[in-house]
Amino acid sequence: MAFTPLLEDLIDALRCLPGVGQKSAQRMAFQLLERGREGGWALSRTLAAALEKIGRCETCQNFSETPQCPLCQDASRETDIMCVVESPADVMAIEQARDYRGQYFVLMGHLSPIDGIGPEEIGVDKLLQRVTREGTRELIIATNPTVEGETTAHYIADRLADNGVLITRLAQGIPVGGELGYIDGSTLVHAFTGRKPLAG
Amino acid sequence: MAFTPLLEDLIDALRCLPGVGQKSAQRMAFQLLERGREGGWALSRTLAAALEKIGRCETCQNFSETPQCPLCQDASRETDIMCVVESPADVMAIEQARDYRGQYFVLMGHLSPIDGIGPEEIGVDKLLQRVTREGTRELIIATNPTVEGETTAHYIADRLADNGVLITRLAQGIPVGGELGYIDGSTLVHAFTGRKPLAG
Ligand SMILES: [Zn+2]
Ligand SMILES: [Zn+2]
Repeated sequence: MAFTPLLEDLIDALRCLPGVGQKSAQRMAFQLLERGREGGWALSRTLAAALEKIGRCETCQNFSETPQCPLCQDASRETDIMCVVESPADVMAIEQARDYRGQYFVLMGHLSPIDGIGPEEIGVDKLLQRVTREGTRELIIATNPTVEGETTAHYIADRLADNGVLITRLAQGIPVGGELGYIDGSTLVHAFTGRKPLAG
Repeated sequence: MAFTPLLEDLIDALRCLPGVGQKSAQRMAFQLLERGREGGWALSRTLAAALEKIGRCETCQNFSETPQCPLCQDASRETDIMCVVESPADVMAIEQARDYRGQYFVLMGHLSPIDGIGPEEIGVDKLLQRVTREGTRELIIATNPTVEGETTAHYIADRLADNGVLITRLAQGIPVGGELGYIDGSTLVHAFTGRKPLAG
């Protein structure tokens, strides 16, 4: 053994982080001990506090340390439009675009029968109750454009078929700034299918 | 703000890790909260224990949670040869090659006057005392083949000029498995200068 046991333990523990293998974990451990002790203490404390206090928002299921998350508490947001996403990272990305000002519902995953993840696990009933209770006018189902995301979107749309709410999906096509030659075929098919007349 | 405050704090805290930017820190925080809570608790606890208990070995300056590190305590190692390296990662790499069985001295850096790092900061006096006390026969100065590493090596060699210890540097040349066409010019110069007759 080349390392003192606690250092080996620290390297092992750092490997629980996504994308961190043995080499990066070593580098992280060395830096924390050599130059980053203050940051290391802050990380240890903040991580414990976050794990202890962060649960789910009762309304939208997003991460929250209070019963209602800051977005659900924000009275200035529109109440008749709701966006369904798979993860908190999606909420973050949409908020950073600073365009959408409605409500959210975070599934924290997608339907995946093979992993035992059914409608109950992702909170579909809760979503349906909210749509009815809040009189949602439009539900944007922004699950990922993957097989699982599409399946989840269709399942939710089916369950709401008789509700009268307008159900929409995000447009698929060429990303802004994207180069045509580097875009995959199925995105191109969507881009052609969804083509629009050029105004002017 | 799209995230609950503690989650923002956790993302900030994770950015103290080397190579972790905003996006990776977000991904790490989400994974710790979504699926990795057990690993997260272990990381928080192990990190606190490591920061509290890991200091320096009194003999070789490597990380250790005991006054003497496991390598310095190992009575089966040769005592008349010592290898000077810049960091604990170097000790790790050398130990993994399973060839060298002598002592170590870890500078925890290199001379860098511009950063206020002089001989005292990297423990040169301590190294010299050890060489004299232990009657070291050969001192392999395995600092990095960089300007700072070479400067540090020459400084230590100068200080030991009258000591009688044999001072060596690691051979420089083509890495095993390296492709000639992809090796930088200065390595090639070293490889040519240090060429050896082919036995046979
Ligand atoms: Zn909420
Ligand atoms: Zn030691």
